Amino acid sequence: MNSYNEAELTIGTQMHGWAHDLWPICRSLTGPGVRETLAYLADLMPGLTVHSVPSGTPAFDWTVPEEWTFRHAYIEDREGNRVVDTNVTNLHVVGYSEPIDKWVTREELDEHLYSLPDQPNAIPYVTSYYKRRWGFCVSQEHRETLTDAEYRVVIDADLGPGVLNYGELVIPGETTREIMLSTYVCHPSMANNELSGPVVTAALARWVAKAPRRYTYRFVFLPETIGSIIYLSRHLDHLKAKLDAGFVVSCVGDERTYSYMPSRTGDTLADRVALHTLSGIESGYNHYTFLDRGSDERQYCSPLVDLPFASVMRSKYGKYPEYHTSLDDLDLVTPSGLAGGYGALKECLEILEANHTYQATVACEPQLGKRGLYPTLSAKGSADKVRTMMNVLAYADGKLDLIAMAETIKARALDCAAILRTLEAEGLVRKVG
Amino acid sequence: MNSYNEAELTIGTQMHGWAHDLWPICRSLTGPGVRETLAYLADLMPGLTVHSVPSGTPAFDWTVPEEWTFRHAYIEDREGNRVVDTNVTNLHVVGYSEPIDKWVTREELDEHLYSLPDQPNAIPYVTSYYKRRWGFCVSQEHRETLTDAEYRVVIDADLGPGVLNYGELVIPGETTREIMLSTYVCHPSMANNELSGPVVTAALARWVAKAPRRYTYRFVFLPETIGSIIYLSRHLDHLKAKLDAGFVVSCVGDERTYSYMPSRTGDTLADRVALHTLSGIESGYNHYTFLDRGSDERQYCSPLVDLPFASVMRSKYGKYPEYHTSLDDLDLVTPSGLAGGYGALKECLEILEANHTYQATVACEPQLGKRGLYPTLSAKGSADKVRTMMNVLAYADGKLDLIAMAETIKARALDCAAILRTLEAEGLVRKVG
Amino acid sequence: MNSYNEAELTIGTQMHGWAHDLWPICRSLTGPGVRETLAYLADLMPGLTVHSVPSGTPAFDWTVPEEWTFRHAYIEDREGNRVVDTNVTNLHVVGYSEPIDKWVTREELDEHLYSLPDQPNAIPYVTSYYKRRWGFCVSQEHRETLTDAEYRVVIDADLGPGVLNYGELVIPGETTREIMLSTYVCHPSMANNELSGPVVTAALARWVAKAPRRYTYRFVFLPETIGSIIYLSRHLDHLKAKLDAGFVVSCVGDERTYSYMPSRTGDTLADRVALHTLSGIESGYNHYTFLDRGSDERQYCSPLVDLPFASVMRSKYGKYPEYHTSLDDLDLVTPSGLAGGYGALKECLEILEANHTYQATVACEPQLGKRGLYPTLSAKGSADKVRTMMNVLAYADGKLDLIAMAETIKARALDCAAILRTLEAEGLVRKVG
Repeated sequence: MNSYNEAELTIGTQMHGWAHDLWPICRSLTGPGVRETLAYLADLMPGLTVHSVPSGTPAFDWTVPEEWTFRHAYIEDREGNRVVDTNVTNLHVVGYSEPIDKWVTREELDEHLYSLPDQPNAIPYVTSYYKRRWGFCVSQEHRETLTDAEYRVVIDADLGPGVLNYGELVIPGETTREIMLSTYVCHPSMANNELSGPVVTAALARWVAKAPRRYTYRFVFLPETIGSIIYLSRHLDHLKAKLDAGFVVSCVGDERTYSYMPSRTGDTLADRVALHTLSGIESGYNHYTFLDRGSDERQYCSPLVDLPFASVMRSKYGKYPEYHTSLDDLDLVTPSGLAGGYGALKECLEILEANHTYQATVACEPQLGKRGLYPTLSAKGSADKVRTMMNVLAYADGKLDLIAMAETIKARALDCAAILRTLEAEGLVRKVG
Repeated sequence: MNSYNEAELTIGTQMHGWAHDLWPICRSLTGPGVRETLAYLADLMPGLTVHSVPSGTPAFDWTVPEEWTFRHAYIEDREGNRVVDTNVTNLHVVGYSEPIDKWVTREELDEHLYSLPDQPNAIPYVTSYYKRRWGFCVSQEHRETLTDAEYRVVIDADLGPGVLNYGELVIPGETTREIMLSTYVCHPSMANNELSGPVVTAALARWVAKAPRRYTYRFVFLPETIGSIIYLSRHLDHLKAKLDAGFVVSCVGDERTYSYMPSRTGDTLADRVALHTLSGIESGYNHYTFLDRGSDERQYCSPLVDLPFASVMRSKYGKYPEYHTSLDDLDLVTPSGLAGGYGALKECLEILEANHTYQATVACEPQLGKRGLYPTLSAKGSADKVRTMMNVLAYADGKLDLIAMAETIKARALDCAAILRTLEAEGLVRKVG
Repeated sequence: MNSYNEAELTIGTQMHGWAHDLWPICRSLTGPGVRETLAYLADLMPGLTVHSVPSGTPAFDWTVPEEWTFRHAYIEDREGNRVVDTNVTNLHVVGYSEPIDKWVTREELDEHLYSLPDQPNAIPYVTSYYKRRWGFCVSQEHRETLTDAEYRVVIDADLGPGVLNYGELVIPGETTREIMLSTYVCHPSMANNELSGPVVTAALARWVAKAPRRYTYRFVFLPETIGSIIYLSRHLDHLKAKLDAGFVVSCVGDERTYSYMPSRTGDTLADRVALHTLSGIESGYNHYTFLDRGSDERQYCSPLVDLPFASVMRSKYGKYPEYHTSLDDLDLVTPSGLAGGYGALKECLEILEANHTYQATVACEPQLGKRGLYPTLSAKGSADKVRTMMNVLAYADGKLDLIAMAETIKARALDCAAILRTLEAEGLVRKVG
């Protein structure tokens, strides 16, 4: 069920530490929390550039919203007890709440409280980006203790012209063909559906940077929806020209079953490598359809954009009980869960790096025996030992790429890649196309 | 299991009344019964033209047969009792019987009697169009009472040069692209496999005539096989140039499971709309193959004709026990059964009218919130409410037509069409192609 | 389960007789055993040419090996008892063993003995073509009786420059388009995985020669792998230009379930006719994939060769317990087993001979009645009798060939071919393409 080795588990622990550091920061679409998060990530990834886009900037059908600067919010009773306080968890405030400081009746307060009767111990995550509101989120159990006649509600925040920020890191490769990873940094304290994305993406960027790569890699850290729309408004032509595969990195940190979210067409290179990788890790992974989408593939795969983006996840957003509540925390997301998400995505990248199309150089099967690659004694069963190599040769037809070959011969792509390197060294296959 | 609303059920009752009026007429390939039937239908559909084709007229590999003018037939015993009499039901005479009036022995009579030992109370329907014969059809129970030594057999009919008739109604639309409905008027008193066809087709023609339509509609009422062959011999080039979809309207009146008969290729527009409509009405509808064909699709889909004809039926001919017997009557066919057949075919036509291909006008998802089309508060689950609209936008890719879009997003085409009208009014999608 | 008629069973008995004659000959890749076998086959097939290729001749990545001339091998104890002797069965010697005559200890002998602990009464078949070795094959039961301290091992054989032989027979047809059958003659006394191939191929060649054929037929009898590689090195361009379908004839003699081995792409004409034929014989036949390959399709379907070769077998090599042991004998292979293999392949050839594409000559269904091909009385059920003829007409669309038509209408291709001959004589269909 997990796709990682010892080295990756060590990285899992490291990623969990980063997530722990980033946990208390109050992120939203905009504001200081996003900048603080990006600054932390820039320490992990030298070269990460933080961009600022002014409020009101148009991007396709949208405009950049006002910046929300949040400082503190609480509910106080007549005795001065802070019965709800964002110092405990920043989920207590509705995202993008307008500032307020007044006494309200129990009834008026009730209209501004959000809780989940079906999950009485969970604080829900609620936002109101595009309509002015104020509100507090509490657990149902907590809500039921708020029985006073009046409360003072305080939200110390500014909502006004400012900027929207995102981070971008491009690591050039041998070619200008690109692989892109996109993750989001706009949710406050949640772990699988937020922090798993940036920490796994950061770890992958560090792995990419460690060695020369064939592909150029593009990593972006942005607020969901509006962030990817802004990014596309600036880079769409370039990406349409250069991008071979993209991944939305989201929900890659718990230990449950892996999940796959296709692109809109479901047949891009990103889809093919994701499907091959996941089927090798866990035959029973969850295969969602594009109708189940919910993250930035909504933009990357929209009709006039149409980029090759798929998602490799653990428990998919919207499909696990802790989703969008305070229960999506750093107990749910673990070092081994993160290592699994990281391992799966790293395998996708490794396969893409090796995803050439090979053609045999001689007609008929080559004589592997004279190269020491074939058993010299033909007895019952002995031929099985070189079966995979023979299959690789049989499908080195100049048409199937590595992934298609591996699927055809029911082998792992990276195993085929290793065999192909041997055969290429022997002059028995060559890359084409 | 039924596809109709209250208004359609009212029409169901009306159609059942028409069928009741048409029931006693003795129809055959040719003759006064066909003309009487077409005259009744012309009262329902002003503009219906009745065509006459002389016997001997060639049509592809066929020639128009002689006209059969049937008046009366009976079997009389020595005491003058009419033990079999077409005044009771016109199924008693073999269709196209030659005239006769003579005494025959019990044994000789027996060679001219048709009954169904397995359905002892059913009178079978038998014809001999292309070889001269005479005969009577009786129930097996009835046959067993005919124990006299001699009987007088009388068939008062003429078989000679005359005409073959069919009815045709063309209702012009905004475009010259056509939809055609073909039904048959050549069986005597049977209800599902005869009268359901013309009465549902007449009701659809009246619905089409009520409002301006994009498509031009062609309705034909003809004797099966020879009628459609003659019609094609006169209109094939026109239909090949203009027809987008055609339906053979047959067996649309009982209350049992719906049935689908594909065109020969199974992938025409008629097939696609029929499949989409039926799967929305009843997931367990009977999906036949073209190998099960038996009506005028045999001609419309023959290799050198190759028109896009499919059939949407209730119980398919040949697949229900009452088929081609006296049990296929106006108790089997009901107002609600007819309303279901009518409703399914009307939905096909409504979808075809709306079957455009749409393309989004902006890259990325549009901001529906600023148009009042999106919830302003993002809380767990709330996004589901606009899911279908988002899916319509995601697949407005300029390639999928309405039917393909609806199939892809697992929604009903007419629901998608309504959403597309809203989005088109907002300038967010436009028709292409 | 069997695909043969009485005449074919007679041929089955004849083929079993030929296999009996060929049984004792010690065949290998090269040597007098191959020549003796080809000489016997040439008596059955006048015109069969025996080719000789000198050792060291290059063929793609290979060179023709030295010739192995085997005379006699045995193991003798101190008393002069020949405890293992190839006069009993030629499986006792490892194929291509180098000559030897010396006394060895029990321990040294043990390193040169091959047996199967899991099949204690079976003598295994072992070869060492491309590395110099000597060895003996015995049953496990036999091996356990060899308890003396010393034995004399004698292998009277030569290994040195010579020739490799293969047989070839081309029977010209009306056209230069070709069908090729390839079988191997390189195993000593084994029946299903050796002799069934050449005797069935010989019987098919005699059947082909009996009458004029549309296709030109090419029959080759060669040592597996190196033989087909040599053959391809001499004929590849010709075969790529001319071959429509090829079959590797192997393992066609036991009475068990039929097997199908596809070409690499699985969609060639050879595949289509093999699948159609087998599905008509036995719905539960074993459908292998090209990953299960093991005979000369390894060469014929290799990427740069890419010829349309499929295999129709009974028990596939490697998949039955007697494979490559002394248990694969002339009790396992029977007259009726051989008749079944012969019958299936003959049906493939008959279908290929008749595999034209037909087009109807008239629009709409023709009037079969006036030609005596249709029942004159239309009563419930009677239309079923001409159903297949009507289906043939409905799919005589100028696009589907005979095989595709038969698959589409769920009929047997040879039945359709007979109907098409009738319809062609009536002028109702014509061949196209």
